[in-house]
Amino acid sequence: MSEQHPIIADLLWRHTAKKYDTSKQIPQADLDILFEAMRLSASSINSQPWRFVVIESDDAKARMNSTFANKFKPNQPHIFDSSLVILFAHNPNYTQKDYAEVVDKGIEDKRTKQENRQSAFNSYMFAELNTDENGDNSAWTKAQTYLALGNTLHTLARLKIDATPMEGIDTELVNEEFKAELDGYQCDVALAIGYKHQEDDYNDKLPKSRRNLTDIMVRV
Amino acid sequence: MSEQHPIIADLLWRHTAKKYDTSKQIPQADLDILFEAMRLSASSINSQPWRFVVIESDDAKARMNSTFANKFKPNQPHIFDSSLVILFAHNPNYTQKDYAEVVDKGIEDKRTKQENRQSAFNSYMFAELNTDENGDNSAWTKAQTYLALGNTLHTLARLKIDATPMEGIDTELVNEEFKAELDGYQCDVALAIGYKHQEDDYNDKLPKSRRNLTDIMVRV
Repeated sequence: MSEQHPIIADLLWRHTAKKYDTSKQIPQADLDILFEAMRLSASSINSQPWRFVVIESDDAKARMNSTFANKFKPNQPHIFDSSLVILFAHNPNYTQKDYAEVVDKGIEDKRTKQENRQSAFNSYMFAELNTDENGDNSAWTKAQTYLALGNTLHTLARLKIDATPMEGIDTELVNEEFKAELDGYQCDVALAIGYKHQEDDYNDKLPKSRRNLTDIMVRV
Repeated sequence: MSEQHPIIADLLWRHTAKKYDTSKQIPQADLDILFEAMRLSASSINSQPWRFVVIESDDAKARMNSTFANKFKPNQPHIFDSSLVILFAHNPNYTQKDYAEVVDKGIEDKRTKQENRQSAFNSYMFAELNTDENGDNSAWTKAQTYLALGNTLHTLARLKIDATPMEGIDTELVNEEFKAELDGYQCDVALAIGYKHQEDDYNDKLPKSRRNLTDIMVRV
């Protein structure tokens, strides 16, 4: 019953692709929808503490490829085989100045009245609650960025675009190589997207496995 | 163009509800789809380091209501006004024993062969990489749980169920009050779901605001 609902069908369809069809590229129209969906992701106090680096040129792919020199080599083929790779990065030191961009965009978008600009900063308390004495709020901003990743994976499933979320990247080398593009944001996870190889994506043939609902949920 | 795509329409439709219609309850068929979609959420190494406490009885709602004694009172009305509240909790000390449940479920679901049980634990390295000397890997498990939250919010938008993600909860009181149900998991965010009040949900009338794509994304 619920298995046949389009939402469940989409989520059962998605899997972590392990081999891509190198001949296929994602149409720009689909990328436009994807990027807009990523932009529309929800986050605490609308903080949007994320930055996305889209690696699509041969030159950028070569740079990303070079970061696999020391480890996580099983993920290396995805860099050139997939359509493109997106670095998901979070702001490890989100500040009131960062939130000012959100507040002022809210005024521009006519969500917040100019005369309420100061009170709009009251919500920043939520960032402060998650900031340590060194200004580090990376656990909080990383969580928001993974919320965007969850929204992105669901969007990709609806677009029937395959994907490989990769914490298996050399974060030191990636953050060094793309330092300019990341602009102070920290990348802990990358996402390859494209179209799976019809025969050689072994993970597409395996049954999906999840913990039982009774083991993850309690209704009271 | 992309604004008219169903995915974009769903994401523009969703907002953080600020006032619920108390007369409406979510049909069980929709809850079944929602809970199954939550269960199917992706996570690093399929770790699924989450626990969901669904607060739906009058007694449980009264207990949740009591946790607003000291702070975050603007969120208090959602507890009784919405259809139900879900605590999203993460495992702050994810261990090899927790991963064994995932591995053994993979064998049960015929994803992993019994003879490969030992090698299936190799992936646990990703948890270790994110674990400090005290066994704390809460930043990592919290991020996975927010990934599930992102998937949940997208699912709710498709089901046309309104929602209020709330970091604005007294986490100390919530974790104490629901200690038995949380079973060692840490709740930093709750989600009220239901149907918005058609007239009094002020946030439904406000334009959505997000940072410009050019400010969050760089294509290289």
